[in-house]
Amino acid sequence: MTTDAKILAALRANPDGVSGAQLAEQLAISRAAVWARIDDLRKVGYDIEAGPHFGYKLVASPDALHADDLLARLGKTKVVGRDIQVFEETTSTNDVVEKLARDGVKEGVVVFAESQTKGRGRLGRVWQSPTRKGLWFSVLLRPNLRPQETTQLTVISATAMRRAIKTVTGLSADIKWPNDLLIGGKKVVGILTEMSAEVDRVRYIIIGIGVDVNQGMAEFPEELRRLATSLKLETGEEVCRGELATEIMRELDRDYARICAGKFPEVADEWEAACITMGRNVTVHTGDRKFRGRAESLDDDGALLVRTEHGHLERIIGGDVTLEK
Amino acid sequence: MTTDAKILAALRANPDGVSGAQLAEQLAISRAAVWARIDDLRKVGYDIEAGPHFGYKLVASPDALHADDLLARLGKTKVVGRDIQVFEETTSTNDVVEKLARDGVKEGVVVFAESQTKGRGRLGRVWQSPTRKGLWFSVLLRPNLRPQETTQLTVISATAMRRAIKTVTGLSADIKWPNDLLIGGKKVVGILTEMSAEVDRVRYIIIGIGVDVNQGMAEFPEELRRLATSLKLETGEEVCRGELATEIMRELDRDYARICAGKFPEVADEWEAACITMGRNVTVHTGDRKFRGRAESLDDDGALLVRTEHGHLERIIGGDVTLEK
Repeated sequence: MTTDAKILAALRANPDGVSGAQLAEQLAISRAAVWARIDDLRKVGYDIEAGPHFGYKLVASPDALHADDLLARLGKTKVVGRDIQVFEETTSTNDVVEKLARDGVKEGVVVFAESQTKGRGRLGRVWQSPTRKGLWFSVLLRPNLRPQETTQLTVISATAMRRAIKTVTGLSADIKWPNDLLIGGKKVVGILTEMSAEVDRVRYIIIGIGVDVNQGMAEFPEELRRLATSLKLETGEEVCRGELATEIMRELDRDYARICAGKFPEVADEWEAACITMGRNVTVHTGDRKFRGRAESLDDDGALLVRTEHGHLERIIGGDVTLEK
Repeated sequence: MTTDAKILAALRANPDGVSGAQLAEQLAISRAAVWARIDDLRKVGYDIEAGPHFGYKLVASPDALHADDLLARLGKTKVVGRDIQVFEETTSTNDVVEKLARDGVKEGVVVFAESQTKGRGRLGRVWQSPTRKGLWFSVLLRPNLRPQETTQLTVISATAMRRAIKTVTGLSADIKWPNDLLIGGKKVVGILTEMSAEVDRVRYIIIGIGVDVNQGMAEFPEELRRLATSLKLETGEEVCRGELATEIMRELDRDYARICAGKFPEVADEWEAACITMGRNVTVHTGDRKFRGRAESLDDDGALLVRTEHGHLERIIGGDVTLEK
């Protein structure tokens, strides 16, 4: 952790205040250096009060994401969030992480952007990423998996996201196969999993996640208003993006550890319980095929098993699955 | 085709010579321009005679690969070789093609290097690529396949390579699953198939191929001499690399068209007939597992089906498969 991250961590751990002397001792720097760092944090929007009785006290944090603050909030994880980068604007956070991956960076790095000029969704679609209204981020992982097992990562992304949203907002999201989170039938999270692989070996995986957090209805394009929502629209109040981001990384780290330990079936059970696709009649579009059937279950690799109208069991790993009314 | 490529194509089509006037008319340039191009081709090693009776005549080509010459030799193909680039030295031709792929270049481009400083084999292994002794090249493809179907491309690479070697040298190579070509039990071709993909959709595939063509025994590292061979060692004479490269692209184009037309089973039959792995007892190393069994057949996606000692049928898509004596 950087010095700023350590100061923010200490301030958050001591909501009633912490003295400059204590901070200086903990961080092994001078009290003047503490003061200088605090002053810099104020300049980027942290409201830190100072007083003779309580020392320093964090009163309010800026809405902007701050890598040091995210590290401070997150604390120690196994893999996810070992390194955090925040960009004001990028083309797509997946692009940034791809570059890091190709440069040989270790797994676990998470890249956030306050806005994306070319946010991507599945199947080459555009993803809207308005400035500071949501969380737009990507995670680099290097799991020991084969290409056809990578649906496991889409599955854990959904379960981790769902628990994080529950913890921070109290909202229960539904999972729509393969990777959308819906609240009240409207999409609130999209996940795009990309990989670089040999035929039999994944080299790296990039999980790109978009969460609609604080948009008002007017901030969604007209054509999305019936289909999409934000956490703010659902709870009626602003959601702290830093807190949500931290909780997501923590839960994702936990589920990644579960699949690395061979416990994917356990995550899959949790996923199925939250999935509104199971047991429903669906229309499947995959490549140039289209057929109807009933979604029955998830297999060991995270593929959806659909019983067709003709009684065959089809294994679906992608494409569009539409729920019938 | 470039003007140089057109001139070389005309010279090859007319082994007894072609007049400057004819060339100028065919290419719609002046006779002086023809002369200037011929002069440039001589400078890069083409031995082109000129005489009042026969005009221009191609007497000998340099050993070096030349993009224009490869285009001229290849003529029209559907996809593979629509664009050809030759580098004197690269890290790895797969790296060059990956960059092209990310820049949105269309499928079919083939990149050759006269030497590679960081040639790669499967599973992160090093591939030796001595200058002008072999063919070290990569092909960009954008097939409409899912990640688990990409073994199809490894399969067509092997069948195409095998036919090209037969045509040019008369040698019959055996295929060892998944992607080695052997002559007399020694490896002569290695293929590395890499991809960029979403979970359910391939974005692009890079087939990297290394062919040991003109090495003498002394040019193989000591530890490879019992395991590897070159076409020159097997035929007893130098093989024209330009001719072989052209034939490989032609055959690869043909087999790629076959799988795009849904005829993978047809290629798979050809592959199985040439495969020395089928019907043999094998030891399989895949990830951290190791087991013995009998290789039975190839499935629809190009995976190897192995009957284990315990009677189970295992579907193998990667790892190492060693033939037992």
